[in-house]
Amino acid sequence: MLAYIVESFDRSTKVIDFHYPNELLQRNNWELSDEPETLDDILISCRATLKYAIKTAHPRYFNQLSTGLDMVGLAADWLTSTANTNMFTYEVAPVFVLLEYVTLKKMREIIGWQDGHGDGIFSPGGAISNMYAMLLARYKMFPEVKEKGMSSVPRLVAFTSEHSHFSIKKGAAALGIGTESVICIKADERGKMIPSDLERRIVEAKQKGYVPFFVSATAGTTVYGAFDPLMAIADICKKHDIWMHVDGAWGGSLLMSRKHRWKLNGVERSGLMQSCNQMQACYLFQQDKQYDLSYDTGDKALQCGRHVDIFKLWLMWRAKGTIGFEAQIDKCLELSEYLYNKIKDREGYEMPQHTNVCFWYLPPGVRYLEDKVEKMKRLHKVAPVIKARMMEYGTTMVSYQPQGDKVNFFRMVISNPAATFEDIDFLIEEIERLGQDL
Amino acid sequence: MLAYIVESFDRSTKVIDFHYPNELLQRNNWELSDEPETLDDILISCRATLKYAIKTAHPRYFNQLSTGLDMVGLAADWLTSTANTNMFTYEVAPVFVLLEYVTLKKMREIIGWQDGHGDGIFSPGGAISNMYAMLLARYKMFPEVKEKGMSSVPRLVAFTSEHSHFSIKKGAAALGIGTESVICIKADERGKMIPSDLERRIVEAKQKGYVPFFVSATAGTTVYGAFDPLMAIADICKKHDIWMHVDGAWGGSLLMSRKHRWKLNGVERSGLMQSCNQMQACYLFQQDKQYDLSYDTGDKALQCGRHVDIFKLWLMWRAKGTIGFEAQIDKCLELSEYLYNKIKDREGYEMPQHTNVCFWYLPPGVRYLEDKVEKMKRLHKVAPVIKARMMEYGTTMVSYQPQGDKVNFFRMVISNPAATFEDIDFLIEEIERLGQDL
Repeated sequence: MLAYIVESFDRSTKVIDFHYPNELLQRNNWELSDEPETLDDILISCRATLKYAIKTAHPRYFNQLSTGLDMVGLAADWLTSTANTNMFTYEVAPVFVLLEYVTLKKMREIIGWQDGHGDGIFSPGGAISNMYAMLLARYKMFPEVKEKGMSSVPRLVAFTSEHSHFSIKKGAAALGIGTESVICIKADERGKMIPSDLERRIVEAKQKGYVPFFVSATAGTTVYGAFDPLMAIADICKKHDIWMHVDGAWGGSLLMSRKHRWKLNGVERSGLMQSCNQMQACYLFQQDKQYDLSYDTGDKALQCGRHVDIFKLWLMWRAKGTIGFEAQIDKCLELSEYLYNKIKDREGYEMPQHTNVCFWYLPPGVRYLEDKVEKMKRLHKVAPVIKARMMEYGTTMVSYQPQGDKVNFFRMVISNPAATFEDIDFLIEEIERLGQDL
Repeated sequence: MLAYIVESFDRSTKVIDFHYPNELLQRNNWELSDEPETLDDILISCRATLKYAIKTAHPRYFNQLSTGLDMVGLAADWLTSTANTNMFTYEVAPVFVLLEYVTLKKMREIIGWQDGHGDGIFSPGGAISNMYAMLLARYKMFPEVKEKGMSSVPRLVAFTSEHSHFSIKKGAAALGIGTESVICIKADERGKMIPSDLERRIVEAKQKGYVPFFVSATAGTTVYGAFDPLMAIADICKKHDIWMHVDGAWGGSLLMSRKHRWKLNGVERSGLMQSCNQMQACYLFQQDKQYDLSYDTGDKALQCGRHVDIFKLWLMWRAKGTIGFEAQIDKCLELSEYLYNKIKDREGYEMPQHTNVCFWYLPPGVRYLEDKVEKMKRLHKVAPVIKARMMEYGTTMVSYQPQGDKVNFFRMVISNPAATFEDIDFLIEEIERLGQDL
């Protein structure tokens, strides 16, 4: 594992040793059988698993929103695995429950809630967190929904930007609200929700007799990295008495940067509560325990036991301090700016203005096409081919996707602390090397 | 960490070095600050975290359904942390996605579905899995619910035993079905759902104009460890055309034991599907990728990225083989039987017949009380005090809870591979030592 880590940071190693699924299935024996395998085989399996894994720590791996490998974080994760417990009562995870308490309080202070008041819980990712937010909003307005279900309440409608994460719709489908009751608000050219459109759609919904209960603003959209105008949205929510949620899965950490936190101004204008998910199962949350039961956090969650996610974040925070995270965030944004400036006037690139650097590379054969329809058709195919070639060579990885009427474009997000200016230069060279013949 | 592991298996070490929350908060500096801490402090923090953690590997830790520490499992978890990716597309987790595919197929074969057909996904625990099951059942009967929400469908009702896990109600609350639409079916003295009561309540619900859509049977209830009669329940579900779900979070692994798998006969009579949760977010699940997209499992899940849980199970399975799990399961059940036989006729104990060994210890001062109301009142307080004392001494830990009209009783579940007959003997002695004066 140590060799793998060292290798991962080495730019001369491949980001991925890519094989198609059927091929990979055949390159090793992955089957489970009745009889135990030998220790040798177990070690071979471990080596094969690492050999064909993506090197997410690699300085040139830019494919996902979260990349990079933090050594203290890794040590913390190993310790978490060693402790081998899960979160739901103080009894089974005393330290981890306290650390979650300490960390959540600190996070609420950073958000700007008075004295860190409020409540919270770590959940298994942003999608489930967004679902929690909808649950809370619905419960606040109609607490009877918990017992009586959606048939006891009027038709609810939720609002979110057309650029928001798909988990808002997924949540609405799951919660019995229905995806048709999620109204997508127009975003401007930079991907920010347009407040006037939000208010117009709220009024329209009310006129139809629907009940607006939830607005999900996004602080860092998935594709453009756009920050919705939280203050204006909070004003509208206050005026119409609607719960405001901010999905900060991608951009929330900017709160730790004194330089960039203004992008989240207004985030402090929302809240949390507990009684929504409580079931008070007597076999778990015995009321006659010897300690303060407010530390038995399990009943706040949709889950029963929860994976211990807190220690990794807590230990990294201890090791870096808030200023360490700030420096890391500022550096990532500086690299984005560097990339932006580098390709802004470079021949063969087109780019709108975004936080995530989104851009098209136009190979010479496409660049000068006059037929616009043909040009877009050809351009749409460029990013997938370059990406596939990147993976074949294993040199770097970056995301691409279409958005609305825009054909496939690269989306470059920089969250890897190991990335440098040179890695950005490399990416550009690599795109041109792999795409010039297209 | 290695010292901690070795210590955890040593019976002379405490299971827990217990402190009350406020005390524990003061015993170490757990605060997060702006400035980084030194490496020394980080190491101190790690040591303190392990010092006050529960030793879940300890052979005398019986507190939770899941206990014990498997060395191969731990190694696998360390490797998972090192790989530091998550699950949603083949692109970001090629090996792990394949291993999930291989493992789920194997599990479906063991369940008994024809040729391992069907679908599945690893989810963050049993509670979320139960919620998935309700989602699937509802979607199968009323696919329009995804777009139109619960207001487009008649009043749905779900059925589950009064001894089932609280996550069924939690799920119903979240999904907009409402807890009042979960009808609790009577269980017999051993904790098994009574099929005739199920059918009676289904007919009754239909007469009221409700639509029964979901029956959740339990294979291993939380408190008694009871197995609902799956065959009889499957017959009723088939007759009334209702989706049958089996919650096997606790007892499902018995399928790997040739001796005990009969308890789950009938589990093969249910199914899974995919389109329920799909949203086809184009920025994640690009249709123009170069590989077979059926390996991009992310869109089946409520989550976006998922924690990589598969490798731990897969590697343990490789190392033990199915027969290794079987031996482990058989041994745990043998220890339960040993405990049962040991206290069956022992003075001062009362016990109904269950898979989980549930029992009362009656201290001499309670044992001979003639006033039955007073006796139950006193007995109700015995288990909490013994448990609190166990934690103070740190010698062992076991669960207790009331159930229905039964006062607090111990629930002994044995899943720790390190436990032996001597540890069972120790538990009895310890209960008597700590409780005789009550």
